[in-house]
Amino acid sequence: MTGNRAVAYKSPGHVEVIDIDYPTFELKDGPGVNPANVGRKVPHGVILRTVSTNICGSDQHMVRGRTTAPADLVLGHEITGEVVETGPDVEFIKVGDIVSVPFNISCGRCRNCKERKTGICLNVNPDRPGSAYGYVDMGGWVGGQAEYVLVPYADWNLLKFPDRDQALTKIMDLTMLSDIFPTGFHGAVSANVGVGSTVYVAGAGPVGLAAAASAHLLGAAAVIVGDLNEERLAQARSFGCETVDLRKGDPQDQIEQILGVPEVDCAVDAVGFEARGHGQAAGEERPATVLNSLMTITAAGGALGIPGLYVTGDPGGVDEAAKVGSLSIRLGLGWAKSLSFTTGQCPVMKYNRKLMMAILNDKVQIAKAVNAQAISLEDAPRGYAEFDAGKSVKYVLNPNGYVK
Amino acid sequence: MTGNRAVAYKSPGHVEVIDIDYPTFELKDGPGVNPANVGRKVPHGVILRTVSTNICGSDQHMVRGRTTAPADLVLGHEITGEVVETGPDVEFIKVGDIVSVPFNISCGRCRNCKERKTGICLNVNPDRPGSAYGYVDMGGWVGGQAEYVLVPYADWNLLKFPDRDQALTKIMDLTMLSDIFPTGFHGAVSANVGVGSTVYVAGAGPVGLAAAASAHLLGAAAVIVGDLNEERLAQARSFGCETVDLRKGDPQDQIEQILGVPEVDCAVDAVGFEARGHGQAAGEERPATVLNSLMTITAAGGALGIPGLYVTGDPGGVDEAAKVGSLSIRLGLGWAKSLSFTTGQCPVMKYNRKLMMAILNDKVQIAKAVNAQAISLEDAPRGYAEFDAGKSVKYVLNPNGYVK
Amino acid sequence: MTGNRAVAYKSPGHVEVIDIDYPTFELKDGPGVNPANVGRKVPHGVILRTVSTNICGSDQHMVRGRTTAPADLVLGHEITGEVVETGPDVEFIKVGDIVSVPFNISCGRCRNCKERKTGICLNVNPDRPGSAYGYVDMGGWVGGQAEYVLVPYADWNLLKFPDRDQALTKIMDLTMLSDIFPTGFHGAVSANVGVGSTVYVAGAGPVGLAAAASAHLLGAAAVIVGDLNEERLAQARSFGCETVDLRKGDPQDQIEQILGVPEVDCAVDAVGFEARGHGQAAGEERPATVLNSLMTITAAGGALGIPGLYVTGDPGGVDEAAKVGSLSIRLGLGWAKSLSFTTGQCPVMKYNRKLMMAILNDKVQIAKAVNAQAISLEDAPRGYAEFDAGKSVKYVLNPNGYVK
Amino acid sequence: MTGNRAVAYKSPGHVEVIDIDYPTFELKDGPGVNPANVGRKVPHGVILRTVSTNICGSDQHMVRGRTTAPADLVLGHEITGEVVETGPDVEFIKVGDIVSVPFNISCGRCRNCKERKTGICLNVNPDRPGSAYGYVDMGGWVGGQAEYVLVPYADWNLLKFPDRDQALTKIMDLTMLSDIFPTGFHGAVSANVGVGSTVYVAGAGPVGLAAAASAHLLGAAAVIVGDLNEERLAQARSFGCETVDLRKGDPQDQIEQILGVPEVDCAVDAVGFEARGHGQAAGEERPATVLNSLMTITAAGGALGIPGLYVTGDPGGVDEAAKVGSLSIRLGLGWAKSLSFTTGQCPVMKYNRKLMMAILNDKVQIAKAVNAQAISLEDAPRGYAEFDAGKSVKYVLNPNGYVK
Repeated sequence: MTGNRAVAYKSPGHVEVIDIDYPTFELKDGPGVNPANVGRKVPHGVILRTVSTNICGSDQHMVRGRTTAPADLVLGHEITGEVVETGPDVEFIKVGDIVSVPFNISCGRCRNCKERKTGICLNVNPDRPGSAYGYVDMGGWVGGQAEYVLVPYADWNLLKFPDRDQALTKIMDLTMLSDIFPTGFHGAVSANVGVGSTVYVAGAGPVGLAAAASAHLLGAAAVIVGDLNEERLAQARSFGCETVDLRKGDPQDQIEQILGVPEVDCAVDAVGFEARGHGQAAGEERPATVLNSLMTITAAGGALGIPGLYVTGDPGGVDEAAKVGSLSIRLGLGWAKSLSFTTGQCPVMKYNRKLMMAILNDKVQIAKAVNAQAISLEDAPRGYAEFDAGKSVKYVLNPNGYVK
Repeated sequence: MTGNRAVAYKSPGHVEVIDIDYPTFELKDGPGVNPANVGRKVPHGVILRTVSTNICGSDQHMVRGRTTAPADLVLGHEITGEVVETGPDVEFIKVGDIVSVPFNISCGRCRNCKERKTGICLNVNPDRPGSAYGYVDMGGWVGGQAEYVLVPYADWNLLKFPDRDQALTKIMDLTMLSDIFPTGFHGAVSANVGVGSTVYVAGAGPVGLAAAASAHLLGAAAVIVGDLNEERLAQARSFGCETVDLRKGDPQDQIEQILGVPEVDCAVDAVGFEARGHGQAAGEERPATVLNSLMTITAAGGALGIPGLYVTGDPGGVDEAAKVGSLSIRLGLGWAKSLSFTTGQCPVMKYNRKLMMAILNDKVQIAKAVNAQAISLEDAPRGYAEFDAGKSVKYVLNPNGYVK
Repeated sequence: MTGNRAVAYKSPGHVEVIDIDYPTFELKDGPGVNPANVGRKVPHGVILRTVSTNICGSDQHMVRGRTTAPADLVLGHEITGEVVETGPDVEFIKVGDIVSVPFNISCGRCRNCKERKTGICLNVNPDRPGSAYGYVDMGGWVGGQAEYVLVPYADWNLLKFPDRDQALTKIMDLTMLSDIFPTGFHGAVSANVGVGSTVYVAGAGPVGLAAAASAHLLGAAAVIVGDLNEERLAQARSFGCETVDLRKGDPQDQIEQILGVPEVDCAVDAVGFEARGHGQAAGEERPATVLNSLMTITAAGGALGIPGLYVTGDPGGVDEAAKVGSLSIRLGLGWAKSLSFTTGQCPVMKYNRKLMMAILNDKVQIAKAVNAQAISLEDAPRGYAEFDAGKSVKYVLNPNGYVK
Repeated sequence: MTGNRAVAYKSPGHVEVIDIDYPTFELKDGPGVNPANVGRKVPHGVILRTVSTNICGSDQHMVRGRTTAPADLVLGHEITGEVVETGPDVEFIKVGDIVSVPFNISCGRCRNCKERKTGICLNVNPDRPGSAYGYVDMGGWVGGQAEYVLVPYADWNLLKFPDRDQALTKIMDLTMLSDIFPTGFHGAVSANVGVGSTVYVAGAGPVGLAAAASAHLLGAAAVIVGDLNEERLAQARSFGCETVDLRKGDPQDQIEQILGVPEVDCAVDAVGFEARGHGQAAGEERPATVLNSLMTITAAGGALGIPGLYVTGDPGGVDEAAKVGSLSIRLGLGWAKSLSFTTGQCPVMKYNRKLMMAILNDKVQIAKAVNAQAISLEDAPRGYAEFDAGKSVKYVLNPNGYVK
């Protein structure tokens, strides 16, 4: 039996690479595993040798201690792998397939899965609809920042790449299909981005950059990205975005300088609940800042896509309201402008196949857009630290040397 | 020259029937007319002899003194009329036509109108996108609770009824096409109500009842209406709705008793910013109560249609946040459930023709659903008072005796 | 081991109730089984004791000898059953569940299933996308006009009724969920039927009646059904449809008498390739008659939903073109009117849950609309004969006495 | 009063530049003017000095004598111009504006226009829904291959370019907004082209090339264009399309060589009724060839966009069926694959604004894609002849020297 090294959350600000068990076709007890899921049989699962697994901004919420994640929780929900073992119920996925794993775990058998709402599957998380690997309060499925990982309901969940060699050649792009590329794309789609749209994306982290790249792919006329971090803004400019420096204040005036009008058709919130103020308030956490500024700069009749994470409970929130996920929103303004709002996890399976096709046919360079860089699994702690410090890099862990 | 009697706002709690000028094809100065609209030529308009004109809940915001409406503002944006004069540019609408007037005024020439977003027309209100007759800050177009009224861009705005006699026979239903029937329908449509849906409508006023009737028309499996007012709940039950008495507390438990589950697929907010608390807080204004309770009772993946009015400024708001239209919303909860939200005025022209067809073919009894009752124009002050006191009646003014 | 009686096709015009094997979790060789499917393991399947199973118009194509169906092919793709045994991979469906079986068999694992296109599943029929129970050239899955039947991919395919007693009480309605109600509904939806639409349905057989009932459920303003058979037209009138007698000629004039205009917004072809002429040509098979007449009577900008079956090969076709499924279509007319056309099997899973909700909440009486009548399994040959003779009855076989 | 030179159809194969009247705000009698339109007042119109006006493939149907177009019919429905005079009812369009004219004339006041179906406006053509400038049986509106042209309902119809200098700089791209760019885009959209789609476009004439460029703009993964003309195929390759040479036979095998599978997700028919055979039949007119081959190569569940023109009557048709616009279509094949079909004129106003935004922001190079070349108005006969001979050029007439 092979060993299994994995990245685990230890304490606020601290992750470590530890030894864990090699997966079997059962969900065993462990840190963060929902009691109702302990002992769950997974004959429909496969075991993957991880090809690549990325550090995500949403992992940082746990690592920063903004959640109730327990020590030794194995992290990682952005997983690409090679199938090394298949459960007895697996029919179409085969050993040797190179596959992308949607970060949302879904069963392919409940009402929501049948309606393509795989981000809110009813059967994988005993607490509530929706689940993910390596995440607090998401059912306890073991994270994939590891050498090996178990993927349940494999025939349903997995996206098989058509050609192994091609897949490994384009792995730095394809690795983004597990989460941030579909998530950014969903943000753009739910903001009604289409051919000729003007778009503003709040946040130039990996999801924001993926939303911006998606907006280009969807034919947007102009894509503007706002952030407080100059290195990230430079990254956005590297692939044809205009940028807004939020340290200079709210985006409205800068948008007017770019477009000639102080508003856009479509807006994406790629920041979420840890938003910080603009201008002089740039240092302070202000959870409603992004949404309120988006309502200001979105034209009447526009739409806001909100892939940025908002949570139901945030022990580290700035005030009592924030601690229960309540924000002071200028809804009156939004109503007067007939805006619409789409929230929630991206249902990855709705988009990953078509985005794979775009990557394989060279229609998009998502790895370049987010500045993907591969590091070893053992280097994960450094990756977490640098990413948290604001470095404009999307860190891709390479536990088994597939990424050259 | 004929005279023209009209209902005017005088002061908080007080409306009066006054004499105003007979309309001409020009927007003249007067109470609430935007200076940039004064003197605007309306060769594309028609003059209507009012057949029916209804008192609306949104009029009550002005009458209660919750806005900056000036004295002598002529009220009324729910108008059905007979064309008595046509401007020189009118080509297809003819004298003698019986027509329904969408409450949103739109030009039929701007980008938004061309995209069917007639609730946010760019050319009729100098202040912002969107306009209406007889409403504060909406450009100053004279209200239609009057014997005669001017309708601009008549070929675009007006819905002609195919047969005069049929129209007058069904006038109590057809009069609802100018606002509340499309508005309720838009609430249901934007909540994704369809065949087999379970639906909760917050508020059993006329818009809520219209939303409930619309949900039935759209094939909903179960329609539940919640309110604090027993007379209104009885009205909802009269056409096949289940009801929730909010004086007993939040709707969740009562919904579970009705459906077997504590949640619905679709939710409509037909209350808006003057919301009151539930249960023991039933007497208190709590502007975010409705939205937060809807997020609780809407199933993951559901949608909220929000036709209820939220405003950008409310001098009478319960706190500083409310005064600028800011509400404490549990967005984290909504996000965790992947909810979507659609706000704003209903673009009436998107729906009024199809709803007219449903009325003319006896597929819906909207007048019964909202308990429409005709009263004389001179009785309007009584209608306002009774409606404000919670009477479950939709008052239809009958200024020229068309309604038998 | 229990025996298993089943309805089998014997020769043109002749069906017989025969003894077949009780199902196991494997697809064994037999009449019409695709060689590539022989021996296929079905651990994901369940065995149903049939609650009800209906005779379908598409079965008649085989029975009339219009296909290459082999003798002893077991018929039946409209199945409702009680689960009596579950395969080892079945996780959520349980013994004792009362379930509806979509007539299209689908795997829940291929691209098309993931996109809700379950009518063209890629993994169940070795010949082409799409499959069905008991049908020629559909892979060889054994038909369900039997006491017991095997259903593969049970967690994915089956719709479980929430309550056993309620299900058995409403079984004559619920039995229509396996095919004709969703099929008729799909026809209406793909014809863009909505609130206020005027609709023409060609064909008053069970699918046509289901399409008409669906149009009512969707809020249509007027539903007109055309046929050559007076008994079927009377059935259509029994639930609020207008009718057109095609023995009197093309539908245009009769539609004008009903609606005042000679055209409708939406049209449904519920006839398919065995269409007969109108008026004096009523006795002759004219495969393009329905489509060409629908193009004439559909208003510019309208849509045609085409659930009626057209085939790729028809040995009994009226001419060489018809024998290869080629029809002389007035496409120039359709183009000039900007019509759109939607063909193909209904993807049942897209609709059956919502239609079940409508049935369980008494929003539709589909059994009455199609004049459902239960007969014993042994009476199936009579049912086939009477249905073929034009009797306006939807025959529901009752093999195990569940239907009271 | 200024003179007015214009391109007129004289006889089969023959066009000529002639003198016609300078337009006034009235539709006067003349060749091809519908009697019911003679004398129609156009106070809502503007007179344009033509900036550019393109020769269209659909003009060729008339010039080849395939229609009943009368001698001296002034041609031209692809018009961009400068407003030189405005009718008394025009409110928002101003003298000096540079504007694009949608080739479909629409009133902005009828049901269809209100529903964005401007290709089938009910008020501009007395014969049937839908109209165009300079086209037989389209109401008689005078064509725009002229120095000056009248445009009715100008506030509704015209798309104003935001900046005059920018517009004239990009005029060779913007001139395609009047017809072929939206028409090709509509073909792609109605074929469900989106991010990651594989697409086949039948026909590498200007509309086919515009459809291919649109498919790229919409994010298609692979765009394949088929034609019988090598020069046109080379043009398609010049902007990233793959190509299929139909002289070698049906497209299936060549598509398999390109994609690895013999089918595509989406197909566009940019050929229409004058289709020719493939392979050895390349010289013969076979009107159903394109549609039947598209059904073969479109994957199950796919869609066909059909912007190519099919007509209700074609005196020059190859057989009696073709003469009345009837084609022998393999509908059985399409049905088995659950295909859908969208026909008809492109409603230009649905797309032209967003495509203008894409051009102005350099997201698409449509002039290069279709190989646009400007020639003088007097050179129009040469342009017609060369285009008819198969030259892969989109001819842009430059009657007033705006195009540099």
